[in-house]
Amino acid sequence: MVLMLRERNKILIETIKRLLRRGATSHLRKIVGKAHAADLSQVFGSLTLVNQRKLFGMIDDLDKKGILFSELEEKVLLDLINSLPLNSIVEVLEDMASDDAADILAKLPDEISDTILEKMKAEGSEELEGLLSYEDDTAGRIMATDFIAFKEDITAKEAIESLQTTHEDAEMVFYLYVVDEYSKLVGVLSLRQLVVVPPDTPLKDFMTTDIFSVRTDMDQEEVAKIVARYDILAVPVVDDKNTLVGIITVDDVIDIFREEATEDILKMAGVGDEYVETQSVLRSTKTRLPWLFASCVGGILAFFIISGFESSLARFAYLAAFIPVIMGMGGNIGTQSSTIVVRGLATGRLVMKDFWPVIFKELSTGLILGIVYGLLIAVVAQIVFHETVPSGFLALSVGLAVISSMSIAALVGSMVPMLFARINVDPAIATGPFVTTSIDIISVYFYFLIATNLLNI
Amino acid sequence: MVLMLRERNKILIETIKRLLRRGATSHLRKIVGKAHAADLSQVFGSLTLVNQRKLFGMIDDLDKKGILFSELEEKVLLDLINSLPLNSIVEVLEDMASDDAADILAKLPDEISDTILEKMKAEGSEELEGLLSYEDDTAGRIMATDFIAFKEDITAKEAIESLQTTHEDAEMVFYLYVVDEYSKLVGVLSLRQLVVVPPDTPLKDFMTTDIFSVRTDMDQEEVAKIVARYDILAVPVVDDKNTLVGIITVDDVIDIFREEATEDILKMAGVGDEYVETQSVLRSTKTRLPWLFASCVGGILAFFIISGFESSLARFAYLAAFIPVIMGMGGNIGTQSSTIVVRGLATGRLVMKDFWPVIFKELSTGLILGIVYGLLIAVVAQIVFHETVPSGFLALSVGLAVISSMSIAALVGSMVPMLFARINVDPAIATGPFVTTSIDIISVYFYFLIATNLLNI
Repeated sequence: MVLMLRERNKILIETIKRLLRRGATSHLRKIVGKAHAADLSQVFGSLTLVNQRKLFGMIDDLDKKGILFSELEEKVLLDLINSLPLNSIVEVLEDMASDDAADILAKLPDEISDTILEKMKAEGSEELEGLLSYEDDTAGRIMATDFIAFKEDITAKEAIESLQTTHEDAEMVFYLYVVDEYSKLVGVLSLRQLVVVPPDTPLKDFMTTDIFSVRTDMDQEEVAKIVARYDILAVPVVDDKNTLVGIITVDDVIDIFREEATEDILKMAGVGDEYVETQSVLRSTKTRLPWLFASCVGGILAFFIISGFESSLARFAYLAAFIPVIMGMGGNIGTQSSTIVVRGLATGRLVMKDFWPVIFKELSTGLILGIVYGLLIAVVAQIVFHETVPSGFLALSVGLAVISSMSIAALVGSMVPMLFARINVDPAIATGPFVTTSIDIISVYFYFLIATNLLNI
Repeated sequence: MVLMLRERNKILIETIKRLLRRGATSHLRKIVGKAHAADLSQVFGSLTLVNQRKLFGMIDDLDKKGILFSELEEKVLLDLINSLPLNSIVEVLEDMASDDAADILAKLPDEISDTILEKMKAEGSEELEGLLSYEDDTAGRIMATDFIAFKEDITAKEAIESLQTTHEDAEMVFYLYVVDEYSKLVGVLSLRQLVVVPPDTPLKDFMTTDIFSVRTDMDQEEVAKIVARYDILAVPVVDDKNTLVGIITVDDVIDIFREEATEDILKMAGVGDEYVETQSVLRSTKTRLPWLFASCVGGILAFFIISGFESSLARFAYLAAFIPVIMGMGGNIGTQSSTIVVRGLATGRLVMKDFWPVIFKELSTGLILGIVYGLLIAVVAQIVFHETVPSGFLALSVGLAVISSMSIAALVGSMVPMLFARINVDPAIATGPFVTTSIDIISVYFYFLIATNLLNI
């Protein structure tokens, strides 16, 4: 059990492939029976569809099939589901927790999910359709509806007895919720409290009444932040009348955070926020096209700016040779500044009241780094051009251009995301093509302005 | 309770500030008593040190002070701790779970943490020093040592009785671990199993023996992946003799994932992996200096390449005006490709066997987008220069340069992180300055090569 996950995956995949080649069915069946469904999901991704179906047929446990569905990569899941008979899909989904089943259905094309839902409804699974009626990315959409709730008047002993006989399906029991006669949430208990009080105590006498709850329409990111901030294992979800309708558990919260981090990273690179690695070349092209347009417009603008200085360029052709280093230094320090600010805001390490200190700090850093690299690049320029431009004004122009480009980049890179956050626009979209391109234009403009003025003296 | 976290923070901060100004001590004490320590930690960040100490003095509950310490931003915590008497710090740390206390001590300057540790040891808290002896970012370093373990021979009833009388301090009880006579981990139970079996059953008859456990020296990221993959709430930590020494709970796992995402994002922007927003301008300059050096060297290289084409530039000065758009388009699509690959590898959506398909897909996307934007930019060039260069060879050069720059950028951007991952170097450091700079150089070189050849015909 102390193998790294990656090695375990590899060994399992190789073993199963070997047994499939050999047709060692009974041995395979044993391995499939022992392996955790989350591990099997990794194996499925490396098998042909025929072998996937063979393996799937060897899983006896409905629970295990459900976990497998949840853990499979989207593309693998879709292919597998398309190849399975409707009955066996419905059977698995009916056995799953309703939030996980809703998750799967949301991934399927509409016509397939509708057929499945139709069939499940005919068999009385209406809960699932209820979940799907909530908006994407809200608490209602991701909550589990298999929670344990007791009436406030029953005793600890009665609650324990009820646990022993029913509620086998409920997801991860660690909090027990207490409701009044109208199913409104009034308290919470831990299993532990239940076993440590005298058996005849009514729940309302020892339940905690100071409960964190979230509304069905709350954004999932907000829910995740609440669970993380208060270090709780599950949070109850209530409707607008405070009726308990579901719970969100900490394992879902982990998924939300990973998803949000990915979205932020992709947004920062200008690839939309839901780029899927497995999508087709054409869809991928379509997602990335608009973001690159900003960069294209910026580039054309820079072109017109430089064209305006054509007479200087015609006289001093080597001026062009410094464009890449000036743009590159500005672009890179700008990316650093905006990344630091965007991530700082996302993790809560930076808050709005830090507005001026942060910008001042970034500007100072940009200035210092600008002076360091401006000097370095000016020295190179002077060494190369000391015969052509003995005055040293070329070196001076380049040095000053690097300093101004880097300071401005640090300023713009930190200020734009802060401003976006202030007007409640997601700061992550402020970085990437947008910031980079504006910095490019400004850098180039200042460079030619400085150079033209100094060299024409 | 349905207010958003941000609004709740704001209201609490404003209320407390108002009461502090008015000197309404008894009212303040009531509010501090009711507020969750995690919320108070947000308030502390906006108060002067004097007011922080005043508020801290109003917290009666040691537990609450401990949570506050854990939740405070590093800089705020250091200032506060420096201003408190040693005794009151030690008192709080002794009450905290050992992993959380170790976390705090690790943040303090060595001389302060040594003094505190000395004092705690004198009072018998040796556990903490044990934790600190594990390497940073390992399971041993982050585990809690306050877990519940029972001997395998005792009965369910005895276990429940023991829960009722002792173990009040143990962190979040949901799994109970079972050990043999040598304290070696042999099984696990849930509290729920304990209450549903007949009271006289010995633990070993119903415990689960198929346990996930991790070793003290396992990397924390690996631990987090295991907890997330198998959706478990806590994982037991064992030493090399399989002796149970601690547990890691899911709330720590959330923190690990957030930390890792931040590290990845910062690495991708070339800001080292532990950039702290609150560090001084000088330290921040030092962290960012080396990464920008790569960009500087690249820029100087691009300068020499362009200088090599000086005669073309002298004849066609306007060639320079297209440098920004060609570099910009290449740079931005390269960042998109490398971000998609780096994040795909981090989340496990991309695996090594996708190597060629991914690179082929990125190259195709780069080629299509290159043709789209190459055409667009060539049209602009033709419109502007149809009199100067009636042959259209300038427009053709620019168009071809955009196509080659974008295809190469997509290729390099996706291939470099995949190659890094293959040789077990963190792919996140492959992006940022490194990829961007190489793409800059290649783009500029191809541009001038194409233009010189076409225009000199």
